[in-house]
Order: sequence, then C-alpha cells, then structure tokens
Amino acid sequence: MNILVINCGSSSLKFQLIHSETESVLAKGLCERIGIDGRLVYQPADGAKETTDAAMPTHKEAIQMVLDALMNEKTGVIKSLDEVGAVGHRLVHGGEKFASSAIITDDMMKAVEECNDLAPLHNPANIIGVNACKALMPNTPMVGVFDTAFHQTMPKEAYIYGLPYRYYEEFKVRKYGFHGTSHSFVSKKAAEILGKPLESLKTIVCHLGNGSSICAVNGGKSVDTSMGLTPLEGVMMGTRSGSIDPAIMEFIAKKENLDIDGIMNILNKESGVYGLSGVSSDFRDLENAAAEGNDKAKLAREAFCYQVAKIVGSYAAAMNGVDVIAFTAGVGENDGLVRKDICKYLGYLGLEYDEASTNVRGKEAYVSTQDSKVKALLIPTNEELAIARETLALVTK
Amino acid sequence: MNILVINCGSSSLKFQLIHSETESVLAKGLCERIGIDGRLVYQPADGAKETTDAAMPTHKEAIQMVLDALMNEKTGVIKSLDEVGAVGHRLVHGGEKFASSAIITDDMMKAVEECNDLAPLHNPANIIGVNACKALMPNTPMVGVFDTAFHQTMPKEAYIYGLPYRYYEEFKVRKYGFHGTSHSFVSKKAAEILGKPLESLKTIVCHLGNGSSICAVNGGKSVDTSMGLTPLEGVMMGTRSGSIDPAIMEFIAKKENLDIDGIMNILNKESGVYGLSGVSSDFRDLENAAAEGNDKAKLAREAFCYQVAKIVGSYAAAMNGVDVIAFTAGVGENDGLVRKDICKYLGYLGLEYDEASTNVRGKEAYVSTQDSKVKALLIPTNEELAIARETLALVTK
Repeated sequence: MNILVINCGSSSLKFQLIHSETESVLAKGLCERIGIDGRLVYQPADGAKETTDAAMPTHKEAIQMVLDALMNEKTGVIKSLDEVGAVGHRLVHGGEKFASSAIITDDMMKAVEECNDLAPLHNPANIIGVNACKALMPNTPMVGVFDTAFHQTMPKEAYIYGLPYRYYEEFKVRKYGFHGTSHSFVSKKAAEILGKPLESLKTIVCHLGNGSSICAVNGGKSVDTSMGLTPLEGVMMGTRSGSIDPAIMEFIAKKENLDIDGIMNILNKESGVYGLSGVSSDFRDLENAAAEGNDKAKLAREAFCYQVAKIVGSYAAAMNGVDVIAFTAGVGENDGLVRKDICKYLGYLGLEYDEASTNVRGKEAYVSTQDSKVKALLIPTNEELAIARETLALVTK
Repeated sequence: MNILVINCGSSSLKFQLIHSETESVLAKGLCERIGIDGRLVYQPADGAKETTDAAMPTHKEAIQMVLDALMNEKTGVIKSLDEVGAVGHRLVHGGEKFASSAIITDDMMKAVEECNDLAPLHNPANIIGVNACKALMPNTPMVGVFDTAFHQTMPKEAYIYGLPYRYYEEFKVRKYGFHGTSHSFVSKKAAEILGKPLESLKTIVCHLGNGSSICAVNGGKSVDTSMGLTPLEGVMMGTRSGSIDPAIMEFIAKKENLDIDGIMNILNKESGVYGLSGVSSDFRDLENAAAEGNDKAKLAREAFCYQVAKIVGSYAAAMNGVDVIAFTAGVGENDGLVRKDICKYLGYLGLEYDEASTNVRGKEAYVSTQDSKVKALLIPTNEELAIARETLALVTK
C-alpha cells in the first residue's frame, strides 16, 4: 500500500509518499508560502528536484498540487488517487485524549480541536491540513499521529508540576512532551541494533535538532521527557531558552519594560545557542566561530552539551539505570563533536566513548565502543516512516 | 572569643552567641514582628526560653534588646559588650562581587548594596541589620558571610542561561545559587566523616527544607547548584514551584487574567508541595495526610522526591561521578521516608540504602550501608556555626 504522509504547518506542508511493504519513499517534497504566493518543491525517488511557483491561496490548493504532481504523466509516481491507500497526518498535540495514533473521524477531530488551547500555533494548522485532504480524498482512510501520544505513559510524579493542583484539573497544565514519534522510532531501532527485546532496555533518546528533547524510555515506554506543556522547556535549543529560573521572566520584564508576550517572544526566538553566541542557531556555524576563537560560540556549545548531559544523568536516576543512549535528529546525527562533548560527562555510567565515531554522520553507528557497559548509538530518525507504519497498522487492523 | 551571629530579615532577626574555641552556643533567640509590635525570644544554653513582648520600632531597638538580654544579670551570659569579639552577619546576595566572606567596611557594604537588585527582599533587610549593629557596637569587627559566595566557583557553562548574552553583561542575569554556607559546611563534614580529603571527593549535598537546593561539590568547590538567579529555581519546595516550563507563566496569566507580579506571587507562595497537595507545606502533614489516603499529598511527596533524585542524577553527570550524597536541613535531617524515597532511585550509582537509617533524625548518621560504593549520609547543617567560623577566620587573620 502507498501511504501519503503529511506534516502541515500554518503556511507550509511537507509530504512523502511511502510504499508500506518496501518502506521506500516514492516521492517527497513540500509546499511553502501557502496563502502568500506559493511554491511547490517535488522530487520523485529516482528523479531531480522540481520547483514550481504557483498560487496556493489555501492548503486545499496546496494539497491538490501535491496530488497532481504525484500523478503527473512525466515525473509522477502513481496513475490515480486509488493508488494512495491511506494518509497519515502528523498532529502536534493530543493532550490527554490521545495515548496513541487514531483513525481520523469527525468525533476524533473534535477531540483534537479541544486541544488547540495547548498548541495554539500548531493544532489549528494541522486541522486545516486534515480538512483540506479530506475534501480532496473523501474515501481514503486517514490516521492522525500525535507528537505527544508516546509520552502519555509517563507516571504522574514525572508529568505533574509543583503548581496549585487546580491548574491541572481545570486547565490541564502538565508535562506532555513532544517529538514522541521520533523518540518511539529511535528507541525501537536501538533495541533492534543491540539485538535485545525493547521490554528489557532502559534507553535515553537525545533528539537534538533546532528543537531538542530528551526522553527516558523504560521497557519501550516513555517515562519522562524534557519538553513540557510546550516545546520551550528542557535544554537550551537553537533559539529557545529551555528551562530557566521562572523569576528571570519578571526580572527581565522589569529591566526591559516588556509584557509577558514580549518576554515569551525573546525566550522562543532570541534565546538558546543563538542568543548566547550572538552568532547563529546552527551548530556548524557555532563550531566554525568557536574554532576561530569566538568565546561566546564556544560557551554556547559547551552549555548546550552540559545541559544535555545533565538531563541524561537525571534520566539515569529516573529509571534507576540506563543501558543505551541514542543520538538522533539534525545535530545528534551530524555533529560528532556535540556527541563527544556530551559523552565525556558520562564515563561514570560505564560509557566508553569511541573516538572513531566522531566523524560519522547521518547513518546508524556505535558511538560507544562495542564493549562499553552502557552503549551509545547514532540512529537517524525517520518520523515520516514512523507515521507511515502507524498509519498502516491502523488502517489494516 | 565570643561571636555574635546575626541573620536579619525584614521584620525578624535570629541570633546566636557562639564561643569560638568550644564552638558551643552560649545563648540564642530571635526577634519577631520588628516594626509591628515586637517580641524577643531568648534562651541561654543552660536555661529556659523567655519570651518578652516589647516595642521594637526598628532593627536598632531589636538588637539593643538582644544585647541587653545577653548582658542581663539573671539570665545573661556575658557581663559587657567587650565580651563580644566579633559579629558575623548572614548576607544573602553577594552577586559576582563576593566569592568569599568579607570584613565589613563602608566600601564593602556599598558593594553589597549594589547587589540589592538581585535580592530586593533580602539584601536591604540584611543591610539594615548590619547598620543597626554597627551603631550599637561601633568598635566590634564584623564580617559578612554570603549565601551565594560558595557557588562562585561554578564554571561558566553551569551558571550561564540560554538567554541573549547581553542579559548577563548588562543585568548580571546568571545562576548564583543559595544556601552556600550550608552546602560548604555539610560537604566539609562529609569528608570528615568519611575520613577522606575534601579535595578527593565528589559530593552532592541535598539541603531539603522549606526552601530546598542541591549542590554538586567537586573537590570542595561548588560546580553546580539547583537554585538560580533567585531561590525559586530547582526542585519544588514548600510553597515554591521550582523550575517549570517558562511558557506556563504565559498560559496561566491568560487563563487567570494575572500580570507577571500575580504569577510570581503564585509561583513563590501558592505552589510547591503546598499547592500540589492542597494540604500543607510541611512534610509531616503530607505524610500524615498520605497515610490517611490523601492522593494529592502522596503525589506531592512523590513528585518532590523524584525531582530531587533527578537533580542528584544530573550532578553525577556534571561531575562524571559521585562518591557521597549528604542529606541536610529540616526535611533532609528529619524525614527518613523522604531520604529513602530519593535513595530508591539511586541504586544504579552503587548506593545501597540502609533501612535502619529511616528512623534516624537530626544527627550524623550513615544513610547507606557502610559497604555501599556510593555513600549517603545524614548531616545536620549548622549555618550559625559556619558563619562563626568564617567570622573568626577573618578577624584573626
């Protein structure tokens, strides 16, 4: 079966058409600037990337263009929409309502809408994408795969904040966590690589990209993760502060005469390694700048690695041990120096770093020595494939 | 030499008169409701507690009453002020200006005043206490002992936040940490108990009281601590939230129509185990309520212990190992169940919990078995004695 995987933002839409038996990508691409001017980037598996500028006033036109490209006589990969067996939608926030992926129905989408409050930027865009897709493919089964669902197994002492309890009861303020599809995919893959049952392993997944989150996976279940109610919590990221003393918000607001929205904007967009270094949110730029003697770029890298190592240490405590630590996503897969600088804190766990791994990029590899008591691995994440697998599992149930 | 130790708040003042050679407390007590109506509680070492209601419009009258009580013919312990060789003042915030205790001079107090910004509730009260004391004992040497000084050895990657760097340069926004006198005292005592040089030990001190902070002490130096710019950061406390997703502040502000001061008030006074349980900020009350089946009291205890264990785990990573974990302060010294519930996460470090320690309260004891690879200890803190020692060291230099 071919499965169309869609990840819909407010003005963009990424897609992949995946063949479920071979798990190969038949075609992929993205629509950008939806509602502005519109551009489609499309690439079949065995062909070149094509870029087409074309008006896409709404997501419906964008998806129509994607479907037309997939069926295009010259560069298309299918002949008719009948060859799309199912659509898998990435959905950001399922609140406490969704502990797993779900077949999309009207009732189900109503429940997703009730979570908009918790992800006011992301969920409405996701919903628009689903509706546009349903209008064009009314008879194709669709599945929603949530970023939060994997973390719904966290115990209450991990997800509750030290706040008045009624904030949880009335407003559902709690830790949800994100990147669940990636943490789930990578933790399963780690067990495969080690040749051990997932149920027997204590795994810590470090999903380090422009947004970063770390997850403690005990026996295949998420038991803690570093992002919280929103994707702002946890380690410092590209432009996000991560966790800080909450009182800093009051301190800065008064110093800079900012209201809470102004502060939030700074914490989300002007902070992290970008704000600290003044150079870039991209770790390649930080490494180049640090190599040229930029102290703040060096500090931003060091502080990032230190914060990740501390979260890893805290999750070893959360699970009373750890068997394997996996690095994934843009920085985790491609930045060997970041992996090395994190691992240098973790010798006490029995992790023996393999120097040779520093230069490995973007493919499965050991980061620790094979004899290391605690193993460290590099595992490329593949959220689209994970969404396709979830979708297949639900539509063929 | 007799050393008068003074800890001055905005409307209260605690004192102890300590004999520096024997390190015994000759008398102690406190003034309450200064500027309101006024009450002195005074107790000589070998006598009963006396409570006297008396007007104390300012801290000067309060200190005069303390001195009068110390010299009182019947229950006093000294004959004249000449028998007070020095005064040690607890000062909360020394910013980056003070990495150790300092003899009080006009210039020194000017530097303390420049840190008021960072501790607007505490430093001004401390300064009032110093000035009142100087007015009454102009020729007695005085020393300021800072809560923050011990932590000034933290490396930059530990104390810097993932924020625009100019907040550090312009406003000195960074992690300072508190309870430094306690963390220093307890980490030294841990080395003594183990009979090992402080320089050789990786120690984690858990100062758990109504305010709680945890400190990583590597070779006698603080390298990280859980409180931050202010004492709000870190684990949840009696009424303080500790660290939360910063975005929660915006979320709650909008839900509850609060401004940033309103939110700060909730995070400082309505949160922590008190807010979560709805019962009390006192762990004895929580345990009683939990024993009677109150789920939220049970949850508050569990979440507190879980958060402490995670910080301990993160500091094992920060130091790439740990030799000894010490519990101190009100909860750490007296609540064996809290110690037990924290230690149960830490077996992977090689910590073997000693069940028999659960019932030990308020005295030096092993919390781990003697054979445990990582040792855990109960060590009563004594901030007044630590201040007296620091004071003696500086005035006899």
